[in-house]
Amino acid sequence: MVAINTEESKSSVSSLPPADAKTRVRDFVKELQDGICNKLEEVDGISKFKEDLWEREEGGGGRTRVISDGGVFEQGGVNFSEVWGKELPPSILKQRPEAEGHEFYATGTSMVLHPRNPYVPTVHLNYRYFEAGPVWWFGGGADLTPYYPFAEDAAHFHRTLKAACDKHHSEYYPVFKRWCDEYFYLKHRNETRGVGGLFFDYQDGQNALYRGPHADKAAAAYSDNLGTVKSRSWEELFAFIQDCGWAFLPSYVPIVEKRNKMEYDEHQRNFQLYRRGRYVEFNLVYDRGTIFGLQTKGRTESILMSLPPLVRWEYCYQPEANSPEAELYETFLKPQDWANWQGA
Amino acid sequence: MVAINTEESKSSVSSLPPADAKTRVRDFVKELQDGICNKLEEVDGISKFKEDLWEREEGGGGRTRVISDGGVFEQGGVNFSEVWGKELPPSILKQRPEAEGHEFYATGTSMVLHPRNPYVPTVHLNYRYFEAGPVWWFGGGADLTPYYPFAEDAAHFHRTLKAACDKHHSEYYPVFKRWCDEYFYLKHRNETRGVGGLFFDYQDGQNALYRGPHADKAAAAYSDNLGTVKSRSWEELFAFIQDCGWAFLPSYVPIVEKRNKMEYDEHQRNFQLYRRGRYVEFNLVYDRGTIFGLQTKGRTESILMSLPPLVRWEYCYQPEANSPEAELYETFLKPQDWANWQGA
Repeated sequence: MVAINTEESKSSVSSLPPADAKTRVRDFVKELQDGICNKLEEVDGISKFKEDLWEREEGGGGRTRVISDGGVFEQGGVNFSEVWGKELPPSILKQRPEAEGHEFYATGTSMVLHPRNPYVPTVHLNYRYFEAGPVWWFGGGADLTPYYPFAEDAAHFHRTLKAACDKHHSEYYPVFKRWCDEYFYLKHRNETRGVGGLFFDYQDGQNALYRGPHADKAAAAYSDNLGTVKSRSWEELFAFIQDCGWAFLPSYVPIVEKRNKMEYDEHQRNFQLYRRGRYVEFNLVYDRGTIFGLQTKGRTESILMSLPPLVRWEYCYQPEANSPEAELYETFLKPQDWANWQGA
Repeated sequence: MVAINTEESKSSVSSLPPADAKTRVRDFVKELQDGICNKLEEVDGISKFKEDLWEREEGGGGRTRVISDGGVFEQGGVNFSEVWGKELPPSILKQRPEAEGHEFYATGTSMVLHPRNPYVPTVHLNYRYFEAGPVWWFGGGADLTPYYPFAEDAAHFHRTLKAACDKHHSEYYPVFKRWCDEYFYLKHRNETRGVGGLFFDYQDGQNALYRGPHADKAAAAYSDNLGTVKSRSWEELFAFIQDCGWAFLPSYVPIVEKRNKMEYDEHQRNFQLYRRGRYVEFNLVYDRGTIFGLQTKGRTESILMSLPPLVRWEYCYQPEANSPEAELYETFLKPQDWANWQGA
């Protein structure tokens, strides 16, 4: 945990969740799944989601919804799951040692959309809640991956999420935006996955907002005001998560509506398929949820519905100088302060 | 290491490599790369390999050769590398603790070929040699991944490799064939990658042929005769590796020549692209070499040249009953005794 030197932090104790916490979060993530799917079908105009209900042997199950061959979405999936079991896997116990030996409960919704038009960005969203013995926490976020990017779209996406964050705490956006740039990063390519958004994990109401890889050495530098964060109650965090979740549609739908009519040809399509390869590389090499799911007993088809429908790899591809493709690499695949973008 | 209860094993010591061991292995793997590339260009008939020479900051470099848009090969790469450095990575040191604190040297060739015609199987080959302080070893193998499979092709591939093995030791083929089935296995799909071939690692002349995941508990069951294997000299192992390497062309080229003229349509092509997704999943989720290379300072483009040029994912795809696609799953993606196949 981040060491924070305030008197307050030493005495803060995470508030207990209410008795109906699990039911309330589960109902919210299901409503969010419903709300997102309904609106996306309307936006798509052609295809409908197909639903698969599934059960998990150890306990729980889910509701996987997939849309394909649509007017906007070449392929996309919105998943809801609610699972429980004897103990969390070692990768999570390392971060939350207090959960060891305790049964766990987890619920959440996750989504990846792959539009057909290369001018419409791919988007990912995930919100989740865990309980295990004495600990509970929220995690999640949303991030945008354009192929032919527009600064105003990146700014709109970030500003919409920032507004949802700012209603709850002025430190949420700066900390979770940076954590997102860190997490969705392809080390072997030296590129961010896209223009980022929000990412956070282990939000249990304790003072530490940031519990990422630099937590032990760089907490102070991470955000100048991190030390002044007050502990937050379960109710406060749940309200925050809900606002983030519902901010998704206004953050993304206007971008789809603006870009989906743009004309493109084989050249743009080929670049999109090539760049989709990075999405595959990230999800299979780095994404903790995907790797954990695959190596344990997750439902493979629900985990891998995040992979794009069609993908290209090309040895030593380089964008032409001064091309739109080069601009993606030079400007958009590096962390930028999109919320403060001063463009047209 | 496998516990083997013979008097002999207790006193065996791996023979020292000759003074010019590195040069000799390096020259062999370069010759193998040359020989394979020359023959593959002849077989392809249209495209030639393009070569990139590269250097590695910490020491060493390589020669990457890529063929694309050919008469047979949609994309393929044959890589040679020779690298050295201060210490082997932790993942290898765990297997070879004697190497800790010692400088290392590694050389090898690796190859993946993705043909365009769905009746021609994808193939992979890798042979490598390591030295680090008091230890040295050879590793490698070759495996075949058909889309529309023929039992006689699988049998031909296995029999050719078996003949190369049998010249050196009757236990090589049965042990390394089984190790291959184990290694090229997609746990999350419950499928082998293809029809297998050979795989082995850590061959240093000690008695233990098998040092895979079941080494500590199942050595005896792995091969009935494992306890009778004599220790082998560096020269014996090097001769074995060379025969394996040169067995590649006769194991694969006749299959290409037999299948490349077969007609196919969109249906077969789509299934091939879908199955190529499994190759990506294996290489990015499980393959030790790929993951290690990506997470350290390997040359990304040389590591990922193993990925197919065009790939599809489809949610919940199921082959039709009694179709050729179903036959692939039911018969060919499970370990089979191909060398003893009794067909036409």
